[in-house]
Amino acid sequence: MSDTIQQNIENSRLDDKLRTMTYGFVGLGIMGGSLAKAIRNRVFDTDGPKGKILAMDIKPLSLQQAVSDKIIDEGFQPCQVRQMLAVCDFVFICLYPGATLDFLIEYRDAFKSGCIVTDISGVKTKIAQTLYSDREKYLRPDVDFILGHPMAGNEKEGYEGSTQTVFQNRNYIIMPDSQNKPENLELLKLLVTRLGIRRIIETDYITHDHKIAFTSQLCHVIASALVDSAEDEQITAFGGGSYEDLTRIALINAPLWTELFLSNQKELISMIENFENSLSKMKGQIAAGDKEGLCKTLSDVRSKRAAMATKK
Amino acid sequence: MSDTIQQNIENSRLDDKLRTMTYGFVGLGIMGGSLAKAIRNRVFDTDGPKGKILAMDIKPLSLQQAVSDKIIDEGFQPCQVRQMLAVCDFVFICLYPGATLDFLIEYRDAFKSGCIVTDISGVKTKIAQTLYSDREKYLRPDVDFILGHPMAGNEKEGYEGSTQTVFQNRNYIIMPDSQNKPENLELLKLLVTRLGIRRIIETDYITHDHKIAFTSQLCHVIASALVDSAEDEQITAFGGGSYEDLTRIALINAPLWTELFLSNQKELISMIENFENSLSKMKGQIAAGDKEGLCKTLSDVRSKRAAMATKK
Repeated sequence: MSDTIQQNIENSRLDDKLRTMTYGFVGLGIMGGSLAKAIRNRVFDTDGPKGKILAMDIKPLSLQQAVSDKIIDEGFQPCQVRQMLAVCDFVFICLYPGATLDFLIEYRDAFKSGCIVTDISGVKTKIAQTLYSDREKYLRPDVDFILGHPMAGNEKEGYEGSTQTVFQNRNYIIMPDSQNKPENLELLKLLVTRLGIRRIIETDYITHDHKIAFTSQLCHVIASALVDSAEDEQITAFGGGSYEDLTRIALINAPLWTELFLSNQKELISMIENFENSLSKMKGQIAAGDKEGLCKTLSDVRSKRAAMATKK
Repeated sequence: MSDTIQQNIENSRLDDKLRTMTYGFVGLGIMGGSLAKAIRNRVFDTDGPKGKILAMDIKPLSLQQAVSDKIIDEGFQPCQVRQMLAVCDFVFICLYPGATLDFLIEYRDAFKSGCIVTDISGVKTKIAQTLYSDREKYLRPDVDFILGHPMAGNEKEGYEGSTQTVFQNRNYIIMPDSQNKPENLELLKLLVTRLGIRRIIETDYITHDHKIAFTSQLCHVIASALVDSAEDEQITAFGGGSYEDLTRIALINAPLWTELFLSNQKELISMIENFENSLSKMKGQIAAGDKEGLCKTLSDVRSKRAAMATKK
């Protein structure tokens, strides 16, 4: 049998498993809600045996809405979360970074034996270093915790802003640990592929936090500074799309991004400084009327950006 | 008769005029090509009397393509441009800023008496100050030159990158001069509305260059610096959309933007410095771990950006 055929048979077995598992969402906001919608509509069969989707959230209205949308089978109040965790095969922790770590520690004993647990947090070092610093204390050998980060989102918030299409053609970063079970990593990878993810990047949490400081956090800082420095709110009358595109992510969830920025302070400051140096170089060329130097910088930038596009 | 009915009758008369005029494009690149396509497909009738579209470009292949696309009726080499201008009722100068000014001066005597001439240049002060400094010398009383700027574009270049949809829901800035004829201003405004423009801003060229330094030029500088400061071209593997959105305009036409930046040097430097101050404030809050201050900045930014969106 060829490798491809073997892989297809294996995927078919894993797909059957994905279709019939019980998923649990800890937090049913924009990301939890989007994941739940995508699993319901893109993973579960319309006929035949179905898995279940359960969710816990602090907002009862989100749970009610998700039940009435037929996205989740049952909603749980925070005080009922142990009851939910006890029956879940696959748990997504969709909380802020600090709350994710706190939850994993507090509910260590509540997970179902043999389950997979993953998170979506935008910074990883503190979570990983704490959990791996004392495995016996923080992680159970019969519960497989996999660090994950869907590189997707939009400027909306909450379950009402969630949509199953948000993962389409996006990247998903996973940071496997030496203790993660190969079959569970395969299940997570196949699941996110079924959700529409185009590319899965496997790396370590240090590299993740370094790269994300640039591609995500620096961009949010720049977009915010660009809105902060606007003379007034009428400025978009003079917009041609560029300003709107550059500042869409400035419709920012302030508490979340405060936490993300401060949890990755050192990497982010270093990225801001690299950017400031590039900006300062260009400002110098403009101020000096250095036509040749400026044109060379812009040509190089164009080539570099074009090369990035081909690597998509 | 109500004002609305009167306005509709007047627009209907002007529409008839727009449908039967002879348009001339000086430069049939991305902007000239897009305007020509939009006029052909959105202004001209499919049946009945039609206007004409003529174009001059340095690239014979663009002209051939536009003729074969049935967008223009006839193409002209640069050496034949006087022949073209002699018959045009409505001329769009679609050249770089410096070349626009040079063209207007060199071909002052070639325009058809009574015609409307407009430009699309992204900076205006030098053009306007030169032309208005000595009207007798530079402007003919029987030719109506109107400063205009369609706030639209994309990362493509040349006629092959042009598309009639680029103006859909965009802004168009016009800078009327005391000598412009009211009917000609109305014709230009109705024309761009028919092309899909959502909002027409009337202002003066000084305000234009000030505002554009922020909404357009600063954004291109930031996008370029953000690509310049990237560690490598593989970074987009870690992208979640933000970096891609912020740097799309870094696929920049280097000679054009070098000219735009340097023609508006003082305004642009001042906008870069305002932005640097906002960035530096946020960097300080991140470095100091100032959770409260940073969260306040981000909340304010969110409100300001949301207010901008409602003013769209």
